[in-house]
Amino acid sequence: MASPHIDADAFRKDWETLLRIGATPDGGVDRPTFSDAHLAARRWFLDRAKGAGLKTRVDAAANHSAVLPSRRSGARTLLLGSHLDSVRKGGGYDGAVGVVSALHVLLAVRQAGAALPVALEAIDFTDEEGTLMGLLGSQALCGTLRREALETPRGGREALLAGLQRAELSEDGLFGARRDPKTLAGYLELHIEQGPILERERVDIGVATRIVGSRSFRMVLQGGGGHAGTTPMDARQDAGAAAARILLTARDIVRRDFPGSVLTVGDVRFEPGAFNVIPKIARLSLEFRSQDDDALDRIEHAVMAAVRSEAGDEGVTVDVTPVARWAASRLDPGVSDTIEQVARSLGLSTRRLSSGAGHDAEELTAITPSGLIFVPSVGGISHDPREFTRWEDVRNGATVLLGTVLELAEKAE
Amino acid sequence: MASPHIDADAFRKDWETLLRIGATPDGGVDRPTFSDAHLAARRWFLDRAKGAGLKTRVDAAANHSAVLPSRRSGARTLLLGSHLDSVRKGGGYDGAVGVVSALHVLLAVRQAGAALPVALEAIDFTDEEGTLMGLLGSQALCGTLRREALETPRGGREALLAGLQRAELSEDGLFGARRDPKTLAGYLELHIEQGPILERERVDIGVATRIVGSRSFRMVLQGGGGHAGTTPMDARQDAGAAAARILLTARDIVRRDFPGSVLTVGDVRFEPGAFNVIPKIARLSLEFRSQDDDALDRIEHAVMAAVRSEAGDEGVTVDVTPVARWAASRLDPGVSDTIEQVARSLGLSTRRLSSGAGHDAEELTAITPSGLIFVPSVGGISHDPREFTRWEDVRNGATVLLGTVLELAEKAE
Repeated sequence: MASPHIDADAFRKDWETLLRIGATPDGGVDRPTFSDAHLAARRWFLDRAKGAGLKTRVDAAANHSAVLPSRRSGARTLLLGSHLDSVRKGGGYDGAVGVVSALHVLLAVRQAGAALPVALEAIDFTDEEGTLMGLLGSQALCGTLRREALETPRGGREALLAGLQRAELSEDGLFGARRDPKTLAGYLELHIEQGPILERERVDIGVATRIVGSRSFRMVLQGGGGHAGTTPMDARQDAGAAAARILLTARDIVRRDFPGSVLTVGDVRFEPGAFNVIPKIARLSLEFRSQDDDALDRIEHAVMAAVRSEAGDEGVTVDVTPVARWAASRLDPGVSDTIEQVARSLGLSTRRLSSGAGHDAEELTAITPSGLIFVPSVGGISHDPREFTRWEDVRNGATVLLGTVLELAEKAE
Repeated sequence: MASPHIDADAFRKDWETLLRIGATPDGGVDRPTFSDAHLAARRWFLDRAKGAGLKTRVDAAANHSAVLPSRRSGARTLLLGSHLDSVRKGGGYDGAVGVVSALHVLLAVRQAGAALPVALEAIDFTDEEGTLMGLLGSQALCGTLRREALETPRGGREALLAGLQRAELSEDGLFGARRDPKTLAGYLELHIEQGPILERERVDIGVATRIVGSRSFRMVLQGGGGHAGTTPMDARQDAGAAAARILLTARDIVRRDFPGSVLTVGDVRFEPGAFNVIPKIARLSLEFRSQDDDALDRIEHAVMAAVRSEAGDEGVTVDVTPVARWAASRLDPGVSDTIEQVARSLGLSTRRLSSGAGHDAEELTAITPSGLIFVPSVGGISHDPREFTRWEDVRNGATVLLGTVLELAEKAE
C-alpha cells in the first residue's frame, strides 16, 4: 500500500471549480446560507464525493458530508469539517479551503487503500457565517443549539424560518442532527487565518490554541423624528446621533480598557432615512470578541452602561436584543501537539495562536478532542472579495491535515 | 353677487377624501412622488376640479392644475399652489392643505360668480418633497431647473429616470413647463408651519417673510473592510466609525457656531452591513439650512473641512457629491402685508416668521410676487405620521387665502 497523498492536480481542479460557484466579478464569492449559489456549492460537493466512490449523508440540520467508512465494525468517526457558505459578497477561501481539503484527505486515504481504524467524514456545516444565525449546523450536531437562540437569530427570525423552509428543514427537526460524542474520534478543521500574523511572521502553519468568545446585540433606538428644517437643534431627539455616539463610545471602551479584544458596529440603518427627516429610528448591530469569558462580561457591562447613557443624553429610548453568545473555547492540547509535529516533520514552520474569528471547531470542542489548523491570509484580509491564500499554502494545509488524520487515526486504535 | 366664501362642508368632505389616499395605519400618508398613491391623489384632484366645472391642465413637468379663467381677455394668472406628494411615511397635512384650500378658493369664486380681472390656477407641483429631486415641478415652471441638478438628484439618478418614465415625462421635456413671468399676477401658498412657533405663541396665522436656503450632499466613505474578529482595533479603516464622527462633528459645528441654523444627517447606510464584517463603505446623506446664503457658505466650508479631517483620521477616503443647493429667498413684502391685513380683518392673530422648511414658494419668488401663509402644526411635528393641524386652523388658512386672492386680484386690475 502506497502512503496516502493529496492528488495535487485533482485538488487544484476541484478548488477552481468550487471557486466559480457564486463567484462575483471582483474576485470574491457570494454564497450566503441557502442562496442558490450556496445550494449549488453543496450539491457540487456531494456529487463530487459520490462520483469518487465516497458515501454521502445530509443530516437534519442540512450538514452535508462525504464519508469514508472504516472496515472495522463499530469504528468511531474522525470528523474533518468547515463550511461552504460565505458572508454576503465575501471571499472564496473562508471555509471552502477546509471542505475541499477534507474531501481530498478522504480521497487520498481511499486511493491509497489505507485501512484506518476510524471512519473519516468530511463535513460541510450549515450556516457557519451567520446569514441566519451562525454555527447553526455545528451547534445542532454538538447538541449546543439553544431553542431561545432560534428566537432572535442574527439574520432575523423571518429570514431563519424562510431559510429553513427553503432547505426543507424544520425548527424542531434541527435538534435531530445531534451526534453521540461516543461515536466521534475527534474533529479537525483547516481554515485560512483571516488575520495578518502568519504572513507577517512568514510562518507556514498556524496551530490554534483557542477561539475567542463573542457576543452580539441588535439595538433599536427610537427618537422623535420630525422635519429636518423646522425642528431646532436643541429640540431634537435624533436616533441617528444617538447611534453615532454609541458606536464611538463603545469602540473607545474596548480600545482603551480591553487591549486584544475587538468591538465592531457592523451595521446601522436609519428610518425613515431621508435627507429632510430627522432619523426617528436607528437600528444598530454591535458585537465584541475576547479571549476569555470574564473579559466578555466586563465589556458587556461597560458597553451597556454607555449605550443607556448616550441614548439618554439624546432623549432617545433604546431596546437591546442579545443575538448570539459564544463562549471562548480551547482546542485540545494533544491534537495541537500532533498538528505541530506533523507540520514540522514536513519541514513547515509553525506558530501557536488564538483565533479571533469564530469557527465550527469551537462548538466541536464541547464534545470531542478538536484541532484547528491555519494557513496564511494574504494581507490578513477576510470577509472581503480580496481574501486570498497562496496555493502553496492551501496545499501545505491540506497535507498537514492529511498527516494529522493519519496520526490521530493511529492513536485512536 | 354674493361675496365668495369657502363651502365649509364640501371643503371638509374633500379633505377627508384626500387624506384617505395613501393613508398609513398610523394616521399618516405615504405618497412619494409618482407612487400609486401619489398618482391617485393627483387624479382625484383633477377629477374633482373637472366635476365642479373648472378647467384642468397638466404641464410638461406633470404639475397638475385646476383653472378658473378670467372673463377678461389676456388676463394674467394668480397661482395658488402647493403639492400632493409626501415624504415616505409622512403626514397628511404637509402640502395637501394648500392644494385642497386652493381648489376651494377657486370653487368659492366660481360659485359666487365673481368676475376677477385675473385667472386663478390651483396648482399641485410635482415632487416638492424630493423623493426624486425636490421642487422639481416649481423649478421647471419657474425656469430655475438646472440640467446638472438632474444628474445628481437626491433620490439618485436611476430613481429620477424611472420616475420620469413612469409619469411619461422626458428629461428634456421638463424644461417646456417654463411659464413666462409676464403671464403671472403672483403666487400664494398656504402651508402648515411644520414647526412649533405658532402653536406655542397661540397665533392663528403665520406670515412667512423668508424661506431658509439649504444645501445637501451625499457622501461615500470607503474604508478597508475586513473580518470583525481578526482585524485588531488599531489596524482598522472603519468607514462606519468615520461616518459616526462626521455626523457628530458636523452637528457640533452648527450647534456651536451657527445658532438658528440646522444640520441633519438623515440617512446612513453601511456596506456590507453584517455583524462580522467591518463596514467597508458608509453612505451618508447630510444637509444644512440657514436663513442667509453667507452662513450657508461658512457652514459648508467648516463642515467639509471636518469631513476630510475625520475621514482622514480613520484612514478612510471620502467622496462628496452635492445634491441640492437652494438659495435663501424672501417673500414679497407687499403680498405679506396684504395677507396680514386680511387675517386681521377676519379677527385672526398673526405673526411674521421665517420658514425653516423649503417650499415651492421659494422658486416662485424668482419670477413673481409671492406670499406664504402658515397655519399651526400641533406639537410642531411634521414629516411624521403624527403631523396634525386642527381643522379650525385649516379653515382659517383657507379663508385667509381666499381673502388675499380677492385683495390681490383687485390690486392687479
